[in-house]
Amino acid sequence: MIDLRSIDAFIDMALAEDIGPGDVTTLCTVPEGRRIHGSYIAKEPGVVCGLPIVQRVFLKLDAGIVFTPRANEGEAVQKGAVIAEVTGDARSVLTGERTGLNLLQRLSGIATRTAEAVRAVQGTKARIVDTRKTTPGLRALEKYAVRTGGGANHRFNLSDGVLIKNNHIIAAGGVAPAVAAARRLAPHTLKIEVEVENLNMLREALAAGADIVMLDNMQTSMMAEAMKLVGGRVLVEASGNMGDRDLKAVAATGVDFISVGALTHTVRAMDISLHFDKPTLNL
Amino acid sequence: MIDLRSIDAFIDMALAEDIGPGDVTTLCTVPEGRRIHGSYIAKEPGVVCGLPIVQRVFLKLDAGIVFTPRANEGEAVQKGAVIAEVTGDARSVLTGERTGLNLLQRLSGIATRTAEAVRAVQGTKARIVDTRKTTPGLRALEKYAVRTGGGANHRFNLSDGVLIKNNHIIAAGGVAPAVAAARRLAPHTLKIEVEVENLNMLREALAAGADIVMLDNMQTSMMAEAMKLVGGRVLVEASGNMGDRDLKAVAATGVDFISVGALTHTVRAMDISLHFDKPTLNL
Amino acid sequence: MIDLRSIDAFIDMALAEDIGPGDVTTLCTVPEGRRIHGSYIAKEPGVVCGLPIVQRVFLKLDAGIVFTPRANEGEAVQKGAVIAEVTGDARSVLTGERTGLNLLQRLSGIATRTAEAVRAVQGTKARIVDTRKTTPGLRALEKYAVRTGGGANHRFNLSDGVLIKNNHIIAAGGVAPAVAAARRLAPHTLKIEVEVENLNMLREALAAGADIVMLDNMQTSMMAEAMKLVGGRVLVEASGNMGDRDLKAVAATGVDFISVGALTHTVRAMDISLHFDKPTLNL
Amino acid sequence: MIDLRSIDAFIDMALAEDIGPGDVTTLCTVPEGRRIHGSYIAKEPGVVCGLPIVQRVFLKLDAGIVFTPRANEGEAVQKGAVIAEVTGDARSVLTGERTGLNLLQRLSGIATRTAEAVRAVQGTKARIVDTRKTTPGLRALEKYAVRTGGGANHRFNLSDGVLIKNNHIIAAGGVAPAVAAARRLAPHTLKIEVEVENLNMLREALAAGADIVMLDNMQTSMMAEAMKLVGGRVLVEASGNMGDRDLKAVAATGVDFISVGALTHTVRAMDISLHFDKPTLNL
Amino acid sequence: MIDLRSIDAFIDMALAEDIGPGDVTTLCTVPEGRRIHGSYIAKEPGVVCGLPIVQRVFLKLDAGIVFTPRANEGEAVQKGAVIAEVTGDARSVLTGERTGLNLLQRLSGIATRTAEAVRAVQGTKARIVDTRKTTPGLRALEKYAVRTGGGANHRFNLSDGVLIKNNHIIAAGGVAPAVAAARRLAPHTLKIEVEVENLNMLREALAAGADIVMLDNMQTSMMAEAMKLVGGRVLVEASGNMGDRDLKAVAATGVDFISVGALTHTVRAMDISLHFDKPTLNL
Amino acid sequence: MIDLRSIDAFIDMALAEDIGPGDVTTLCTVPEGRRIHGSYIAKEPGVVCGLPIVQRVFLKLDAGIVFTPRANEGEAVQKGAVIAEVTGDARSVLTGERTGLNLLQRLSGIATRTAEAVRAVQGTKARIVDTRKTTPGLRALEKYAVRTGGGANHRFNLSDGVLIKNNHIIAAGGVAPAVAAARRLAPHTLKIEVEVENLNMLREALAAGADIVMLDNMQTSMMAEAMKLVGGRVLVEASGNMGDRDLKAVAATGVDFISVGALTHTVRAMDISLHFDKPTLNL
Repeated sequence: MIDLRSIDAFIDMALAEDIGPGDVTTLCTVPEGRRIHGSYIAKEPGVVCGLPIVQRVFLKLDAGIVFTPRANEGEAVQKGAVIAEVTGDARSVLTGERTGLNLLQRLSGIATRTAEAVRAVQGTKARIVDTRKTTPGLRALEKYAVRTGGGANHRFNLSDGVLIKNNHIIAAGGVAPAVAAARRLAPHTLKIEVEVENLNMLREALAAGADIVMLDNMQTSMMAEAMKLVGGRVLVEASGNMGDRDLKAVAATGVDFISVGALTHTVRAMDISLHFDKPTLNL
Repeated sequence: MIDLRSIDAFIDMALAEDIGPGDVTTLCTVPEGRRIHGSYIAKEPGVVCGLPIVQRVFLKLDAGIVFTPRANEGEAVQKGAVIAEVTGDARSVLTGERTGLNLLQRLSGIATRTAEAVRAVQGTKARIVDTRKTTPGLRALEKYAVRTGGGANHRFNLSDGVLIKNNHIIAAGGVAPAVAAARRLAPHTLKIEVEVENLNMLREALAAGADIVMLDNMQTSMMAEAMKLVGGRVLVEASGNMGDRDLKAVAATGVDFISVGALTHTVRAMDISLHFDKPTLNL
Repeated sequence: MIDLRSIDAFIDMALAEDIGPGDVTTLCTVPEGRRIHGSYIAKEPGVVCGLPIVQRVFLKLDAGIVFTPRANEGEAVQKGAVIAEVTGDARSVLTGERTGLNLLQRLSGIATRTAEAVRAVQGTKARIVDTRKTTPGLRALEKYAVRTGGGANHRFNLSDGVLIKNNHIIAAGGVAPAVAAARRLAPHTLKIEVEVENLNMLREALAAGADIVMLDNMQTSMMAEAMKLVGGRVLVEASGNMGDRDLKAVAATGVDFISVGALTHTVRAMDISLHFDKPTLNL
Repeated sequence: MIDLRSIDAFIDMALAEDIGPGDVTTLCTVPEGRRIHGSYIAKEPGVVCGLPIVQRVFLKLDAGIVFTPRANEGEAVQKGAVIAEVTGDARSVLTGERTGLNLLQRLSGIATRTAEAVRAVQGTKARIVDTRKTTPGLRALEKYAVRTGGGANHRFNLSDGVLIKNNHIIAAGGVAPAVAAARRLAPHTLKIEVEVENLNMLREALAAGADIVMLDNMQTSMMAEAMKLVGGRVLVEASGNMGDRDLKAVAATGVDFISVGALTHTVRAMDISLHFDKPTLNL
Repeated sequence: MIDLRSIDAFIDMALAEDIGPGDVTTLCTVPEGRRIHGSYIAKEPGVVCGLPIVQRVFLKLDAGIVFTPRANEGEAVQKGAVIAEVTGDARSVLTGERTGLNLLQRLSGIATRTAEAVRAVQGTKARIVDTRKTTPGLRALEKYAVRTGGGANHRFNLSDGVLIKNNHIIAAGGVAPAVAAARRLAPHTLKIEVEVENLNMLREALAAGADIVMLDNMQTSMMAEAMKLVGGRVLVEASGNMGDRDLKAVAATGVDFISVGALTHTVRAMDISLHFDKPTLNL
Repeated sequence: MIDLRSIDAFIDMALAEDIGPGDVTTLCTVPEGRRIHGSYIAKEPGVVCGLPIVQRVFLKLDAGIVFTPRANEGEAVQKGAVIAEVTGDARSVLTGERTGLNLLQRLSGIATRTAEAVRAVQGTKARIVDTRKTTPGLRALEKYAVRTGGGANHRFNLSDGVLIKNNHIIAAGGVAPAVAAARRLAPHTLKIEVEVENLNMLREALAAGADIVMLDNMQTSMMAEAMKLVGGRVLVEASGNMGDRDLKAVAATGVDFISVGALTHTVRAMDISLHFDKPTLNL
């Protein structure tokens, strides 16, 4: 479900950044025409994400490289699993290796962490969603990794969702006028979400006709009370340092969504290495 | 020492990515001409990095925004410290808030982790250096964050350093021919570094005339033996999952450089929030 | 409410397209340093739109040009009205004249037509909205012109609204599964709109839980029946060649929105000319 | 005769603008691998223009889409005619549908109007030509549509023709010095055209050695007199609101060219729809 | 008469190419805040060209740098002359020095050679013009240098002049049909030039109604005969390795233009150096 | 060894620059579908460089063009030699001809001059290297031409080599502190080169631990003395107007490298023409 077309410019940039004017070492030491074969090995368990992107990286570099996934995108693999193989011109493969790995490891890291969060809320109706706390330039990829890990996406950017926070409320002169202004001026295809920090704000948001309320940084007990107030009338999102919270407990309050910024702002790259065969020389 | 000129296109992209066709919420709820003031607060201790970049983000968005650092770039701050303040048109500030924070938190996270590694090797001659395991598109910024945290930079990309790894050696037909080829073909301004995995390879690299040797994934005891073999004739870099190693012990072997991929591939965003004053309305 | 920042690249492109390697005529005939003053005159009544954009065109070309609006953006002016004035280096003004006028006339044409449609439904609750039938490359500007004329915006692109049409329904296996899929997979900030062509489809859409229904190409009498069926439970949009319909009659059925593709796909440029003073020579 | 190579960047931009981060509706409701077939139907008579461009739009989106023209580029079709067919992956086709249609309808609208103007002057030597009053960003496409409708192109931009207007004349100190300056300074491959508003200016232009004269906003009777004065010595272009004039009468004066700004500044999109087969489900 | 606006992207590219990720030497050795002053000295006589461009290079790099021309653009200077001075932040000046010099020396080389050619034909009516044999990416700059040296410009690219060569003639089926086709299809603002290699072809071109004839690679004596045949009816351009010909003799035949490819395809950079003051340390 | 991938954007730009909105002459006179065959002929002896680039130019323009080299890249050819052939659609070939030739002639000119310099130092250990005195935008290509002619490359830009010149030394407070700063702050993969103008400076540079010394503008006799001082401890580069020096004599002093700015700043295009077959018409 990733739109690969749209990442070609990103890949071009990534390759240019990593290669610069040329891969001096490879150009000096690897003869033209030499071929190579390598395997991507998981050095730890995790959820694989980014295989089609690595494939695209190699294709952009050299249309002759064959990159063959050996795991499914989104598959949970064990330590030691062969995730993919690559075969092609040795110069091209060695030159593109790092750009591909940098992406694969990061996206798999995000998918792995998302899958853990999804597992934590299993059996509840709560869905794990991401935030706008993504790495600049990688939002489409990182949100794709969240989906690959079993999560769902919140709005993509500031234009495809109305999310009224404290400062908007103050500037508009209150919750009711803020919601009314959004109802009047925003495209009618967008729902209106209001961030609330306490039960009073929640009551105001409900009275103002919000479509969604976001419970921000509330204790789990206050969330439970909030859910009673809401009574199923609107969608509810729990938010605020959810990366450090007991997701199972939050989900048990009955919220519809839990948004976890840490899915993308605090990434632990999955450990994956690319092992090349050494057919001709043994040191 | 960051070349701000060169990041303007990056900032344009980041803003376009986060804003999309427009910040619907802000445009609907915040009247034109309203002004706002906010403070960046450290929610945990850390080394601040990215202030000039956030300043540039706001300037690109609206030349009237005044962003004033209250900490020095690279300063270690405590929890609760005011890092910076921002004043300006409320629409512009709210629209640019997230892009700035996404960068500030990530870079401060990298600087903080780098500073910890530097502290670990204090008193030795070892320098902490980064790798090419950076986020695609952010290499210049992430390497800047490493410097800000007290580390040093390894080569920027594949063109400004010769680093001969196993596959280059195999393709060239051995360590000696690989080094000789690089000596003959690479620009004479570049040193030649050879990655070695054991003492035999190290002996070959020394015999071949390498300028630098990289001890890859060696136990600390083997590193110590290696240092004896080297005897100060060339520079030595320790490498390979150094993020999980006892850096003090590694440094104690006498290596010149320790390269730590985790500085940039596994980032924990520093927790920083932007608190706005609420002068006109109290909910 | 137009985000001028985002149109700078567009203006650069437009100037490059119109100027090419250089304005040969002006460079040959107009001495350096000569100054000029001109007035934009409405040659017919209309709603002015695009003044800040023309200002930006001139500023990009020559920071010394002073462009002074004499009407408000969105103001309905009469034939003969002075809309704006421009003063500056004669070479720059003459070189940029056409690019500015091309934009001003087109956007004013759209705003004028929108204002007519808005007037037609005055006194009803129906709002006039635009569509995605815009000129490629000018969507942000054309949607801005619709707002300037008093209309509202539908979704900006395919990512900020769910609009389920016949083919989506067929592919999903019916209205109910289509709505369910969107509810499950699309960001929860987006409402779900379903296009219906008859009352049976409308019943299915309501049963499936659509947030909005679009009555496509219905006779006004069928629309009235549809409104009874809906009974105020969801928002209703009337659509389909509305540029040729009696908007007052459509609005009288009680629909919430009327989307008019012709606002942007069939544009009559407003007739505006730029008259320069001729102080020095009289032919 | 359109140079398709040069419009690829334009198509990329148009697709990005219309799709945004992704076609949410299609991605949610249309299963991967589903195929679709559709036909482009003329809903009114007109001259078809833009088929190769729509083909390119689909190819850029998905190389597997087959777009087959069923009319010739520039062909006059009747209401109900099948203009083209498209077959391919349903997701891709539905996602690219609107961008293709927006271009096809606009260009066909321009070609249709041009063909009407050309028909009006049939039997005279006058040629219908366009102006620089095109939509910013679409000049190459709109001028192509004029050619497709049977018209000819005036200069492409300010660099490939010398067109001396009143302000150039004033700045240069008269018609004679303006023409002399252009003769001396402009590339010798360009003809020199002078815009004249009355017979005195015409006499000056002829005396000054203009290669072409443009009769601007003249009554038809004055044009006839002007033609006598010219006596076949230079080319003559009639200009000025020609969209509202009796072109047959203008042509009857014997002018060589009639330039019609309205061909491109006031466009009525030709009504064309894309009907998809509905093989699997009947609502 | 150079349009500086249009070269900003070129300058950005040139600086990025020369600086790469950063000027390592300067960043390491020159303390922040240090200032520097330097003088551009002509190491040989020549015509200066490029001062506004060097100014722009520095401004793009650092708005605080003051670059002050001490010669006029196009001025013929003697060996030892001070052409310009630069003052500013030492890091910025040293980093931008080479990009500026590379442009200044090349453009001055072209202007100098052009001035020599112009001097050679002084007293005749022949004008020295350039060709399309320019360095890819530098056409606007190199044609500007030709004008600065006293020459004139031929067409800028393939769209702003009709130049019918042998292969066009063969493809069109002869000179007459080729000229007729161009007369019918090309914008009427363009003159039609025909390249001829002998007197028979010249007669055909004249009969076909060419506006300009290009005498290609003719001996001077044949040119003289050709001029008699032409008898002043059309413009005449002499072409073909004119860089190696006796321009005075060619001009004496009475041709209107002599186009010299060598002006731009064979460039000898003018020797100019930038001497910095050394106020603080004497080695 | 040229990385063709990275020059695609350059070729796009070069074609756009030379073609502009369209090749008017060819489009008017050459019927669609006509094919053409041509041969590239050396009009003088030289070293051929640029064949893969010309091939890429044609492929970018029209994937159906077949460009077949008849000489090897880097081969020394005689006057009259057929270097390559091209076959394809006549419109495309004629439109792309000049862009290809402009590159081929320039790069062959550089390779030819480099080969002459290399021949001059044959039998010594000196290597001919280039400088940063390249044409802005063409550095990668021009450095490739130097390699093709048998030379070697100096640093690519300011980031992949440390070259300490006089101003750096002054700013740092002397040679020793400058070298120390670079040793401490620059990536450890880069060697440190110091430019010296006399024997005192040379002594300081050696004492400071430079890896390479550049003898700038020294008389040959002083160079010989310098070589004695160096005594083989570091690499030595001779520099400074080497284009006008007796390279054999310089090389005889025993220097390791001679850098020649004139290889790229003063280029004489090799004379190569493209002759087309004329099968159908004989004038």
